[in-house]
Amino acid sequence: MKKILGVGLLVMLIAMVAFKADKKKKVVFFGDSITEAGVKPGGYITVLKDKLAKENINDYELVGAGIGGNKVYDLYLRMETDVLAQQPDIVVIYVGVNDVWHKRSFGTGTDPDKFEKFYRAIIKKLQAQNIKVVICTPATIGERKNFTNAQDGELNQYSEIIRKIAKSESIPVVDLRALFTQYLQTNNPDDKDRGVLTVDGVHLNEKGNNMVADEMWKGITQVK
Amino acid sequence: MKKILGVGLLVMLIAMVAFKADKKKKVVFFGDSITEAGVKPGGYITVLKDKLAKENINDYELVGAGIGGNKVYDLYLRMETDVLAQQPDIVVIYVGVNDVWHKRSFGTGTDPDKFEKFYRAIIKKLQAQNIKVVICTPATIGERKNFTNAQDGELNQYSEIIRKIAKSESIPVVDLRALFTQYLQTNNPDDKDRGVLTVDGVHLNEKGNNMVADEMWKGITQVK
Amino acid sequence: MKKILGVGLLVMLIAMVAFKADKKKKVVFFGDSITEAGVKPGGYITVLKDKLAKENINDYELVGAGIGGNKVYDLYLRMETDVLAQQPDIVVIYVGVNDVWHKRSFGTGTDPDKFEKFYRAIIKKLQAQNIKVVICTPATIGERKNFTNAQDGELNQYSEIIRKIAKSESIPVVDLRALFTQYLQTNNPDDKDRGVLTVDGVHLNEKGNNMVADEMWKGITQVK
Amino acid sequence: MKKILGVGLLVMLIAMVAFKADKKKKVVFFGDSITEAGVKPGGYITVLKDKLAKENINDYELVGAGIGGNKVYDLYLRMETDVLAQQPDIVVIYVGVNDVWHKRSFGTGTDPDKFEKFYRAIIKKLQAQNIKVVICTPATIGERKNFTNAQDGELNQYSEIIRKIAKSESIPVVDLRALFTQYLQTNNPDDKDRGVLTVDGVHLNEKGNNMVADEMWKGITQVK
Repeated sequence: MKKILGVGLLVMLIAMVAFKADKKKKVVFFGDSITEAGVKPGGYITVLKDKLAKENINDYELVGAGIGGNKVYDLYLRMETDVLAQQPDIVVIYVGVNDVWHKRSFGTGTDPDKFEKFYRAIIKKLQAQNIKVVICTPATIGERKNFTNAQDGELNQYSEIIRKIAKSESIPVVDLRALFTQYLQTNNPDDKDRGVLTVDGVHLNEKGNNMVADEMWKGITQVK
Repeated sequence: MKKILGVGLLVMLIAMVAFKADKKKKVVFFGDSITEAGVKPGGYITVLKDKLAKENINDYELVGAGIGGNKVYDLYLRMETDVLAQQPDIVVIYVGVNDVWHKRSFGTGTDPDKFEKFYRAIIKKLQAQNIKVVICTPATIGERKNFTNAQDGELNQYSEIIRKIAKSESIPVVDLRALFTQYLQTNNPDDKDRGVLTVDGVHLNEKGNNMVADEMWKGITQVK
Repeated sequence: MKKILGVGLLVMLIAMVAFKADKKKKVVFFGDSITEAGVKPGGYITVLKDKLAKENINDYELVGAGIGGNKVYDLYLRMETDVLAQQPDIVVIYVGVNDVWHKRSFGTGTDPDKFEKFYRAIIKKLQAQNIKVVICTPATIGERKNFTNAQDGELNQYSEIIRKIAKSESIPVVDLRALFTQYLQTNNPDDKDRGVLTVDGVHLNEKGNNMVADEMWKGITQVK
Repeated sequence: MKKILGVGLLVMLIAMVAFKADKKKKVVFFGDSITEAGVKPGGYITVLKDKLAKENINDYELVGAGIGGNKVYDLYLRMETDVLAQQPDIVVIYVGVNDVWHKRSFGTGTDPDKFEKFYRAIIKKLQAQNIKVVICTPATIGERKNFTNAQDGELNQYSEIIRKIAKSESIPVVDLRALFTQYLQTNNPDDKDRGVLTVDGVHLNEKGNNMVADEMWKGITQVK
């Protein structure tokens, strides 16, 4: 009788461990076309998956929720169906390029104060579901160094807003803007506007995807 | 015994009638600076209140929920606290000027497809609470007739979107755009860009407030 | 001796008549990409040449001076080398689309007051050389009828400026804006934004080139 | 006889000195509203005049030719009447703020390639009259340091164009952009967007006018 009980307990324990092993942390990357491309072959999410597999890190499930052209308020509108419904443990918000870019290309960017308002509203809704949040600054619109790309001023401004939110909310920030501009200082000697970390000034090339994958991982592992 | 019952019934009926008289239909006007000004002395909501009082129409309560600079997605963000929390019977949505205007003034207008998307999302959330909806087209940005104001093309375009939504959702539409442009055809002989129905091309003057009050009332009484 | 003189006179007279026949009126079409395409096969200038040839009208030489992306001040900058140096008899100015269009696409359109200022400066310089001038209104940016294209308001506004200049300077005006919008009212039943008179909302298709060719000829023959 | 000759020589010498004293170098400051304000009390041209007077430097005549809202092509249009007609020895071109600024505020800025084209056309016309040229970079649109003002990217870009022209034409450049951004790094600890060197982010305050006056003088004295 005792023996049977012992076996039963052992089975239960094994099952629990197995369950725990199965219960991976679900990370949803919530963003725009850069994240939409992130799940494709060579995309930053795919690259990160491969890196984790190689290092036998099996307790994370990485999911993409990026839609091209999205601005912060588009994320807010679709967060219930596209993110909350997935019951993620961690959400990485990566938005801001279109909020700045579309000011010029279409006259439909986002005012800085409203950018912050919607950004904080998204975080609040996620945190209300006990979801951990990681946020990212937008990297580049044009790769020329020394801040001579047309919208560098605003990318810096919106990145500052995101850093401020991260600080006030004690949220890890993946500072792609700082990372990219620093990298370009020393790795863009010909001052090209694309081709170093992006294919078109905005969307990531192989090197860019690789850098973002590494940086995202650093951000995710900062989550407590 | 019968008599007492009769008296009791009478009291009950009186109470019910009194209650019904007390239970006014709450109408929330949900919009931008035009609606924010609407509750001030001379504003279109105040004017409509006065008109109803004069005609002894007592079964409507008119409430303003306008905030300057609001675009359709700003309404979406604040609809729970500012509108749903008030448990209105009818909501009049009056938005669109800034969605067009800010394209030019700040580069932060709203794309037409997203305008429609957020507009429909607001209606859906209201209808889910059994709230009746009335929607309005944006009147003018500049009063010059014959469509020579800089943003006439887009005001017409966004008004078409609103008319299309009204039709597909069988919702009453207060077509201020049609009303104003028609009125200006015959009442703006000097082709002034302001001063006929507005003080600055956008915000209503006395005549404009009066016209909008009348037109809003027509829309509200179309609600079934 | 007398006979010889007579023959000599005759030869001279013939030579003069021949010279006069040779001395065609040179018409330079001065504009943007629409005019740049105008000299290509099927372009409106080529079409007009063919029409004149068919009707044995031989006393006009049609020359294109269009450069893509040009606004009114670009014409002013290059008018000496590209137009005056050709010693034309007539210059047809056909500009304005980019002055309006680039407001949106690049934030580099032309203010209405400066549009008029540069336009008048060009006319003044041409008239100072005894060159006759014909001016044209910009046709369309988008072919939707009923003024729902995003920049219809401004196209109407800038067309009004051109009509005003034409009137005050007693210059023939080729009113392509009026012509096109009128034509689209009855010939664009599906309210398409391109494909009726243009290939992309701006640049002329076969029907458009044909209409512009006819209309240009009417304008040129109004020159006194 | 000798005496008379002596007296004659003396008179001649006096006349020559007098003539030389009269023949001041005329410097025309050619620009926008900043230069229009420059000739007013406290403006940078007035300040420079006062400084020169204090130091008994009498051989320069400083003239303002600034008009509010001017972009590079506006200077080109009015250079004959407003500058060449004054027969200056030196022209200081100080333009670029509106070429960038109006992209946002009105959609009517100047494309970078056309900015360079018109800028070079102005210089060429001045040099054809043997006029010496000094050129300036545009200082600021917003004084926040670390390039977070909305249009910093473009101000840097257009400043680069001006530096490139200065280099290729061997013309002295008054690099106000470099000077201001450097100054703000250490003198704008609270990261204000105005009030350090300007009153509104663009137009100079007392300190700004003083700095520009000094810097202009350095540029003018570099003219060979």
